[in-house]
Amino acid sequence: MIKRIAPNLRIAQSSAMTHECGFIFAAMREHYFDDLKVGDRFKSEPLNVTEKQLIEFAHKFDPQMFHLSRKRAERTIFKGLVASGWHTAAMTMRLFVQTLNFAEGAIGLGVDELRWPNVVRPGDVLTVETEIVDLRLSRSRPRFGIIRLRNVTTNQRGEIVQTMLASAMVPRREKFGVPPLGGSE
Amino acid sequence: MIKRIAPNLRIAQSSAMTHECGFIFAAMREHYFDDLKVGDRFKSEPLNVTEKQLIEFAHKFDPQMFHLSRKRAERTIFKGLVASGWHTAAMTMRLFVQTLNFAEGAIGLGVDELRWPNVVRPGDVLTVETEIVDLRLSRSRPRFGIIRLRNVTTNQRGEIVQTMLASAMVPRREKFGVPPLGGSE
Repeated sequence: MIKRIAPNLRIAQSSAMTHECGFIFAAMREHYFDDLKVGDRFKSEPLNVTEKQLIEFAHKFDPQMFHLSRKRAERTIFKGLVASGWHTAAMTMRLFVQTLNFAEGAIGLGVDELRWPNVVRPGDVLTVETEIVDLRLSRSRPRFGIIRLRNVTTNQRGEIVQTMLASAMVPRREKFGVPPLGGSE
Repeated sequence: MIKRIAPNLRIAQSSAMTHECGFIFAAMREHYFDDLKVGDRFKSEPLNVTEKQLIEFAHKFDPQMFHLSRKRAERTIFKGLVASGWHTAAMTMRLFVQTLNFAEGAIGLGVDELRWPNVVRPGDVLTVETEIVDLRLSRSRPRFGIIRLRNVTTNQRGEIVQTMLASAMVPRREKFGVPPLGGSE
């Protein structure tokens, strides 16, 4: 399901390699702040959206008629079931977390320009492309860096279903960070 | 659980009343675009966050160690389990949808300045306050209006756990909108 979108596409195996590729599949590899450069791009595995998951999410978090049942959704502006935008956002997070796989986790600080230009329907297959747009060290926590990234979520036809800019705090490698109290450095 | 935050607080019973109140509880009442004015404010019912729900959401959408298990979360920067920001966003949507209860639903167009200034932990009780910050008619769909709103989500101690600005497309009352094709007007 994953399209080859850069002629020199290859699986990332080392830190040095991550900057040679147009896009990187990196689901298995742990990342730290220091592994990233502005302009790095990553592509997730695909994720299937089922009708059952879509309705289940809606019952819990967005109980509106175009999300809740096929029959009622047919009479709405969407002429059928569509996913809650917050479900698309949550599925995007799942794919992003799997792909970037930050050591000790990525702590979300904020999101801007979250948009849903096309709807997600049951049976769609979503993929997330992440681009690193800014990197800076944390002023208050020297063991962390702040990344700014753009996530674009597309369906199986290449239509964009979600875009956003996000900031997250992620750990630095030990050797780059401040040594622990009582350390020899 | 809901604090009385305006001296003239009362339950909204008619369209005219919605503009007399500092905050309005309106969970049972259907809203249309034409019922709203810039500056209108609404407050949701409270919602309990359980450890089970928090972990379940994390397994599906944000599988990071500070969201997944109490034991592993204790060794992280948060010193305990915290909810995914996307879980907080989804719970906020639930409370917003229940409170504003738009006839035919509210169609999310986009979100800006989504922030999580404090963490959500198991046992927290969340409430959402909504303020209408802008209203305009849809240019392409005369039966709809576009609302811009600010949602602020607080916990039981009054600490803000999420803020955002959102735009949504919501239906107009029939008499304000364009009549159906073949209508007498």
